[in-house]
Amino acid sequence: MARHVAGPEIEALIRFLAKLPGLGPRSARRVALHLIKKKEQLLVPLANAINQAVEKVQVCKTCGNIDSASPCTICTDPRRDPSLLVVVEDVSDLWALERASVVNAAYHVLGGTLSPLDGVGPDDLNIAGLLARTAKGEVKEIILAVNATVEGQTTAHYIMDQLQEQAKDLSRSNPVFEAIKISQLAHGVPIGGELDYLDEGTLQQAIASRTRVE
Amino acid sequence: MARHVAGPEIEALIRFLAKLPGLGPRSARRVALHLIKKKEQLLVPLANAINQAVEKVQVCKTCGNIDSASPCTICTDPRRDPSLLVVVEDVSDLWALERASVVNAAYHVLGGTLSPLDGVGPDDLNIAGLLARTAKGEVKEIILAVNATVEGQTTAHYIMDQLQEQAKDLSRSNPVFEAIKISQLAHGVPIGGELDYLDEGTLQQAIASRTRVE
Repeated sequence: MARHVAGPEIEALIRFLAKLPGLGPRSARRVALHLIKKKEQLLVPLANAINQAVEKVQVCKTCGNIDSASPCTICTDPRRDPSLLVVVEDVSDLWALERASVVNAAYHVLGGTLSPLDGVGPDDLNIAGLLARTAKGEVKEIILAVNATVEGQTTAHYIMDQLQEQAKDLSRSNPVFEAIKISQLAHGVPIGGELDYLDEGTLQQAIASRTRVE
Repeated sequence: MARHVAGPEIEALIRFLAKLPGLGPRSARRVALHLIKKKEQLLVPLANAINQAVEKVQVCKTCGNIDSASPCTICTDPRRDPSLLVVVEDVSDLWALERASVVNAAYHVLGGTLSPLDGVGPDDLNIAGLLARTAKGEVKEIILAVNATVEGQTTAHYIMDQLQEQAKDLSRSNPVFEAIKISQLAHGVPIGGELDYLDEGTLQQAIASRTRVE
């Protein structure tokens, strides 16, 4: 076992940095040294940023987004179309869609995908919250923007079943109830993608969903 | 430009995380999300560790090591041989040698290497501090454990010249002064290294410094 050369404060810093995704013991030491050397420019501002995050950041009770307010900035944004709801697995997916600025809608973060092997069932995801939102009648269209993985697609199917179930119940009690349109992201060749590197499933989808150009 | 979806606290956290070595904007977002999701297990302890580091960590005035005390734990360790001084470029090199537990000596951290192109001269390194320590007469041997790079070797040569200069001065005023032994790390094939992957310089050194086994 190596001797402890750095003080307990540095050892603790390295230990917690090593737990971050993408960092191991070696890179954590490098990051710690870098932070300590740039104390005023980096360590102190980072400390402030983290303290602020500890204090302010919370999960939006409406959509599951992470923000410093609940309901979050997106849920309270009056310029967004509240009748269009984009369902995503994770906050990182929400951020990705927002970075691309492709849709001006409200979101709903599931917090994962159904995964029976890992013990993740419907109650572990924010599906009840989604059904509570759709029951209010404001939402007219849902885009299931889940990942194109087996788990993502399974979750999408489960949610579709639940929404159709709910639509049946609602139309029974309310004759003018209009069923919500449900769509999924298109599958195909990614922009800049080379066919040679794509898997068969993607190519198959790209052929099957081909679009006429003339 | 992407819209700001996360609160200003999260944006600030991502911005500072992206400045850490080895992290870019994408991995900084991933780390920030991970931290926020594991608020109690990770974000809060990391905040405490960083706050402690901000408060306690300092540079040892004797050797240039980073620790929560000055003089540092190594400089004040009575079990270490104060007559043997290992000169390293950086604190990370000191940590590497200590992890390997190969030498029970005092250290001296230069804080870099001579690099005229980058404007790093002798006055920018902790060479004056080294000469002040050797002038006291306690140090009997110095290991110049600098990197095997051009800059490292240049720095080693400069320090050797300075030490010989100092030895001349000291022996003039003090006839019983004993010159300090100076050594460098051995060059050769690293343990586990394959000859096929080594550069010519290393192989040349390994042949020139070959050791008899029988």
